[in-house]
Amino acid sequence: MVDVSEKQDTARTARAQTSVVINEAIYRQIKDGTNKKGDVFAVAQVAGIMAAKNTAQIIPMCHPLALSGVDIRFDWNVDQANGHYEVVLFATVKTKGPTGVEMEALTAASAAALTIYDMCKAAGKEMVIGPTMLLEKTGGKSGDYSRG
Amino acid sequence: MVDVSEKQDTARTARAQTSVVINEAIYRQIKDGTNKKGDVFAVAQVAGIMAAKNTAQIIPMCHPLALSGVDIRFDWNVDQANGHYEVVLFATVKTKGPTGVEMEALTAASAAALTIYDMCKAAGKEMVIGPTMLLEKTGGKSGDYSRG
Amino acid sequence: MVDVSEKQDTARTARAQTSVVINEAIYRQIKDGTNKKGDVFAVAQVAGIMAAKNTAQIIPMCHPLALSGVDIRFDWNVDQANGHYEVVLFATVKTKGPTGVEMEALTAASAAALTIYDMCKAAGKEMVIGPTMLLEKTGGKSGDYSRG
Amino acid sequence: MVDVSEKQDTARTARAQTSVVINEAIYRQIKDGTNKKGDVFAVAQVAGIMAAKNTAQIIPMCHPLALSGVDIRFDWNVDQANGHYEVVLFATVKTKGPTGVEMEALTAASAAALTIYDMCKAAGKEMVIGPTMLLEKTGGKSGDYSRG
Amino acid sequence: MVDVSEKQDTARTARAQTSVVINEAIYRQIKDGTNKKGDVFAVAQVAGIMAAKNTAQIIPMCHPLALSGVDIRFDWNVDQANGHYEVVLFATVKTKGPTGVEMEALTAASAAALTIYDMCKAAGKEMVIGPTMLLEKTGGKSGDYSRG
Amino acid sequence: MVDVSEKQDTARTARAQTSVVINEAIYRQIKDGTNKKGDVFAVAQVAGIMAAKNTAQIIPMCHPLALSGVDIRFDWNVDQANGHYEVVLFATVKTKGPTGVEMEALTAASAAALTIYDMCKAAGKEMVIGPTMLLEKTGGKSGDYSRG
Repeated sequence: MVDVSEKQDTARTARAQTSVVINEAIYRQIKDGTNKKGDVFAVAQVAGIMAAKNTAQIIPMCHPLALSGVDIRFDWNVDQANGHYEVVLFATVKTKGPTGVEMEALTAASAAALTIYDMCKAAGKEMVIGPTMLLEKTGGKSGDYSRG
Repeated sequence: MVDVSEKQDTARTARAQTSVVINEAIYRQIKDGTNKKGDVFAVAQVAGIMAAKNTAQIIPMCHPLALSGVDIRFDWNVDQANGHYEVVLFATVKTKGPTGVEMEALTAASAAALTIYDMCKAAGKEMVIGPTMLLEKTGGKSGDYSRG
Repeated sequence: MVDVSEKQDTARTARAQTSVVINEAIYRQIKDGTNKKGDVFAVAQVAGIMAAKNTAQIIPMCHPLALSGVDIRFDWNVDQANGHYEVVLFATVKTKGPTGVEMEALTAASAAALTIYDMCKAAGKEMVIGPTMLLEKTGGKSGDYSRG
Repeated sequence: MVDVSEKQDTARTARAQTSVVINEAIYRQIKDGTNKKGDVFAVAQVAGIMAAKNTAQIIPMCHPLALSGVDIRFDWNVDQANGHYEVVLFATVKTKGPTGVEMEALTAASAAALTIYDMCKAAGKEMVIGPTMLLEKTGGKSGDYSRG
Repeated sequence: MVDVSEKQDTARTARAQTSVVINEAIYRQIKDGTNKKGDVFAVAQVAGIMAAKNTAQIIPMCHPLALSGVDIRFDWNVDQANGHYEVVLFATVKTKGPTGVEMEALTAASAAALTIYDMCKAAGKEMVIGPTMLLEKTGGKSGDYSRG
Repeated sequence: MVDVSEKQDTARTARAQTSVVINEAIYRQIKDGTNKKGDVFAVAQVAGIMAAKNTAQIIPMCHPLALSGVDIRFDWNVDQANGHYEVVLFATVKTKGPTGVEMEALTAASAAALTIYDMCKAAGKEMVIGPTMLLEKTGGKSGDYSRG
């Protein structure tokens, strides 16, 4: 794990995105709140937040950081005419620390998406997760980044 | 967490796939073993295996299972003429238990891909992870599944 | 950790109860879904389920068990005339294994109650958790137990 | 998980209380050091300390904090004439950080009490844990709190 | 993680040994129960038991196993005339499963020894841990093993 | 867990050493990269780094610290004429915090050594781990320490 002891503690944020393409039955289930395992987005949100806090245990070379905030959002990208049902997930993570929180945001988004898969897989295993990507980061010596 | 106490312990397997699209510099770094954080695929493999074992702690509604085997493989999908560099990851998980290991395979693949991102992000944050999907599963009452 | 290697794997269940006495403002917040941290019962349910799975890591002498089911329920015990607002929590845990799941049920109920406290404490720190107790258990050599 | 990145790092403490009502046989066992699983209070103390450190993994919306101190104490509240045997537990937690440690104190007290239950349940499952409550906290923008 | 799905579940045990060479002041502290962090052997015992249960999370290629028993013992090897003070630790682990528990026994012994170091290091950092070794194992296809 | 809230955050380092005595077959396996579980040193390095980050969960009275760097190195101490094959491991840990990182360095070295044992035990269970010791530490009120 690379040495960051010379780095300054600065405010840092990162925002990542992923998505889950689902079928119509799953779309109905989530919309109508009829998934028998629970409230899909509420559980996925908790999974994302806990994964963000657990990132340094999941990603071997990741530095442990005391996160100051984690936010998970869900959007719908639906085109019923063409049978396209997609949940778009956004994870925003903040810290004041010596390294960035890109991995925390990406890990949170991934865990939330995997949780959607888990809760809905009884109604269709053909769901596809991703593309998963970093949207933007701020803070740190390497400067801000925003996906073009 | 749904009740599976009536389900039989049977041999079960699942295989999931994901990928990481990288840039040429990262491709060279992995191929030449010059990543300063370590051997990228070796570390990603460990991350995948440990995430598989940790799935029930990452995915809230997932049942804990004593896994009997986890295998992480990496393939290259490279088209240098068109500047396309992609690592394709396969995670295969086995157990003898009352529920399937789809989530373990998907979580292992995701953690391995996130680890590649983490180890290589100093050379380019525009990497894209996914699509992540289940390729096949065997065992259990719902029968075998193979992605068409 | 006492040796249970001679014990038989049998179906076992346990049900525990706890409660959280809250103030009227918190009651309104939960009922109206206006808690700014999220859906209180949904998050508490996830916390309870994950704690049940994590019991052997929280309670030192507890044997690890592959749980087959965890269920967290919430009831209201409200007497507005007398200003009494109370959430009653029930945690039911099942396994097929060599030891009982009393601790998993009690730990799940406790973690769910603590999560309610955490999410609502901005509106009143005087909440009281408990009494926490085992309601019943089935299975195992010592036989069934039901609180009188 | 709410954003605390604007909050100052200040010294913070919290003290929580819970209790376990036990029967006379369990009282004798603890007093005489004859519990076959080990030294009940010593193990419960370790469980409380480790739970305090693990709070952000048990309580979903809790911020991770680098604790600077955790102290678990046990008192007896015994009235033999009336057959009342009760262990009273106090957990005190300190940190220098942006959020308070109420949840760490409450979680530590709960885990210690659950551990007493676990170690003694062979001699009586009718033990009752709680009431569990915050006694006082210091530090932070919302000021000090002391249970009336 | 190698595939053990063809292996039979059999009763398995393993016993490992390690030791900690300490100075006289630490010896007195442990014997007299004056270590200010707590009861050294009681805390080390808990650390060993919890590490045994956590082995598959500490050792990457280790299969998760539902342990049926863990026992940690401490012996003194003291030669005051020559100023030699040594704690000898034994960890015995049992399971009924498809792979052995050598790593659980070795990891338990190591964690218990490290805990002794941690609790006593204020009185002398020159302590030496080890040699750590497997004493014997039983069960499994490869048969029993006993260190000569 | 003793109160360190009055201690200053200072830069701190610690370096620990352990070793694993192996047989010639295992030596060949590691050197030739023919261990069927993977690259022995790469996996052991990951295990050491993750254990360093996890120290406060493994060692009960250890304070949680945000590590700024962990480095695991392997050396050979081989005397083929006398049939002596030994891997020497060094773990260096850095932080900026209120307590030292001796335990993190010792725990990292131990976990890396245990991982070597685990990956190689099919070729000989007589391996011996240790002696494990602190080589040096810097920072903190008690000053620097260097093993004589």
